[in-house]
Amino acid sequence: MDDIQHIPDLMQAIGAQAKTAAKKLATATTVQKNKALMEAATALRASIPAIMEANTKDIEYGKAKNLSAAMIDRLLLNEDRIEAIAMGLEAIANLPDPVGDIMASWDRPNGLHISRVRVPLGVIGVIYESRPNVTADAGALCLKAGNAVILRGGSESFHSSTRIHGCLVEGLQKAGLPADAIQLVPTRDRAAVGEMLTMTGVIDIIVPRGGRSLVERVQTESRVPVFAHLEGICHVYVDEAADIEKAVAINLNAKMRRTGICGSSETLLVDVKAAAMLPAILEPLFSAGCEIRGDIQVQAADNRVKSATDTDWDTEYLDAILSVKMVDGVDDAITHIAAHSSGHTESIITENTETAEKFLNLVDSAIVMHNASTQFADGGEFGMGAEIGIATGRIHARGPVGLEQLTSFKYQVRGNGQTRP
Amino acid sequence: MDDIQHIPDLMQAIGAQAKTAAKKLATATTVQKNKALMEAATALRASIPAIMEANTKDIEYGKAKNLSAAMIDRLLLNEDRIEAIAMGLEAIANLPDPVGDIMASWDRPNGLHISRVRVPLGVIGVIYESRPNVTADAGALCLKAGNAVILRGGSESFHSSTRIHGCLVEGLQKAGLPADAIQLVPTRDRAAVGEMLTMTGVIDIIVPRGGRSLVERVQTESRVPVFAHLEGICHVYVDEAADIEKAVAINLNAKMRRTGICGSSETLLVDVKAAAMLPAILEPLFSAGCEIRGDIQVQAADNRVKSATDTDWDTEYLDAILSVKMVDGVDDAITHIAAHSSGHTESIITENTETAEKFLNLVDSAIVMHNASTQFADGGEFGMGAEIGIATGRIHARGPVGLEQLTSFKYQVRGNGQTRP
Repeated sequence: MDDIQHIPDLMQAIGAQAKTAAKKLATATTVQKNKALMEAATALRASIPAIMEANTKDIEYGKAKNLSAAMIDRLLLNEDRIEAIAMGLEAIANLPDPVGDIMASWDRPNGLHISRVRVPLGVIGVIYESRPNVTADAGALCLKAGNAVILRGGSESFHSSTRIHGCLVEGLQKAGLPADAIQLVPTRDRAAVGEMLTMTGVIDIIVPRGGRSLVERVQTESRVPVFAHLEGICHVYVDEAADIEKAVAINLNAKMRRTGICGSSETLLVDVKAAAMLPAILEPLFSAGCEIRGDIQVQAADNRVKSATDTDWDTEYLDAILSVKMVDGVDDAITHIAAHSSGHTESIITENTETAEKFLNLVDSAIVMHNASTQFADGGEFGMGAEIGIATGRIHARGPVGLEQLTSFKYQVRGNGQTRP
Repeated sequence: MDDIQHIPDLMQAIGAQAKTAAKKLATATTVQKNKALMEAATALRASIPAIMEANTKDIEYGKAKNLSAAMIDRLLLNEDRIEAIAMGLEAIANLPDPVGDIMASWDRPNGLHISRVRVPLGVIGVIYESRPNVTADAGALCLKAGNAVILRGGSESFHSSTRIHGCLVEGLQKAGLPADAIQLVPTRDRAAVGEMLTMTGVIDIIVPRGGRSLVERVQTESRVPVFAHLEGICHVYVDEAADIEKAVAINLNAKMRRTGICGSSETLLVDVKAAAMLPAILEPLFSAGCEIRGDIQVQAADNRVKSATDTDWDTEYLDAILSVKMVDGVDDAITHIAAHSSGHTESIITENTETAEKFLNLVDSAIVMHNASTQFADGGEFGMGAEIGIATGRIHARGPVGLEQLTSFKYQVRGNGQTRP
């Protein structure tokens, strides 16, 4: 099937099949959807040798393409990782089904009873790079929320994703659900991505999962609404009234727990009135191998601090590097964040509730925190069970995109003969 | 200012001003926003002669352009209509402010307290035709929800809208809010609309208000998400178990109360097992001057019934015309609706709760009703106070778009020093 079809025709056909499947899925029961996920997990476990064989082909292809060691590692599947994917499917099966939830209901003076009820969003397009596990994770989340999904994986994971997709389809079939509920674009041709981005009226939402260049391309070109974040330039602000122990622990965790995730902090802002806390905050960061790039005042505090340039305040390092700046209180911190944040996650460290509330109200990011690590910016940590990503847009979904964010709603109006005067 | 500027530059400047205003509005108090609306109402009443003078210019321009009598009437302002506009502003001032509402909140096992809080959407673009009252209505709704708005009115209402806009700005200034919170595009050049539709990153949502051709252009061309409905092909289904009195009253009301609104019914589906009710349902429609276009079975029931063609099932008449079809029970009705509805509003008339619930669950329209007139499809009738329109899309807003739908949200996370393990 690879690279032989006329891509627009292929994508039109996939889109039409997805729409048909979405109509059937809208009335699928929770039991059916969960059965599909559990059966897919079983199929995955039974297919470990076949998946690993497919993965070997991808690894060879990736090495021939001179992928970095980090990218090869993302691509690699082994028994443990396949087991983790299967457990991920079971975890999604165990999440509550959002479809049918009554989000709000009220009565009108004329006796009409109005309810806003969750329904599936429709058809979701997921465009991702070479992590084959996304095939299962994204497919399962979309299915659980009652949506049909069109998956377009990275070319390097083509064989692995195809094999994993086969297991998902097996699950769908065993549950009596349409096989087209989860489709994988069966070509490596990049033109398929361009087609997906223009399939308005067919695809309701596009979710890009991958690096900056992928997300940027999708955000720039897509005619379909997109749930995504381009980057996570997250800030921690240490206020004059900060508890020093919290400031030390949270800054170390926000930066160094995992430096490569979007919720890791990239800039530390310190109130000049809290300058005395700076050495205690920086020391464990240095010990953990973090490079510090500071403004002149921060450089003066420790000679290991390198000089920050203007671009540092707008840089997502995704690495053991932190930019540090002194600011004149919470208002100055809020102004800096407004100018440099990517609207993802910011945290204030203070024991002053009034200052904290000001920060929580005035900082316009998807997630604003008080006395907590920015690394909690995650659907699982929020109690949503799982997420398909984090959105920094303002429409429909913002912050972690979990099952609820993958739904729409409709109004049900129950009357007893009412006519409008 | 008219037709003399370089439109892309003009719109860029308006967009930048709107973004700046939106940042200030995000923290405007309810008292300030309400004061702006009340002061604008006062300014409107004080400006009646000036508005009527401006309106006279528009009417002359419209007559010179040979606008239809109906369009001239939409354009016309008189003392009563201006008073109604002022009262509309006061009504919006009296609605609850959605900004700051806690939509949901929960605690995590690690002690983090998470809240989802309503915030303004940002910058809204409203593109409308020649109803000058939309200038005030749309401007006020966007403002109350904390948004900056860019209004682009029809060229025929240019002078009236400019004068009304002046009153809104007066209100903003008296309340200490930025005058750029409500901007009116100061040119009749249609290129301004094209600019608005591509202002991603500046305008968060476009709302078109007007006829089919305007909405179609906006939906086709816009790169910015759109809240709209293209048409309202609304259905009433009379089930075997319908109460005949309800069926008669609701069908008359759904079609004839006002034929020109999007929630008026266009197609009546009658269960073959309820065929005996047909004469009683059709008689008052005939008496009210409604033309009936039916399939062969309906034609057989009454010789005044004209013959429906295939296109009738996909036609929004917005007139005293109703297409009528016999169907084989609720499943057949649902199938017909799935094929022909515009996804706006549909209603089932039945005393059988099970059948009603099936219809309410399986019909995939923004609004589904049981034993009620489709003409209730309206934000005011839903208790939302006012609406900027009805949306048939699935993203963010669906059904009546009121104040809540003109907001976004963010997450506030309150901790006491938590770090992520």
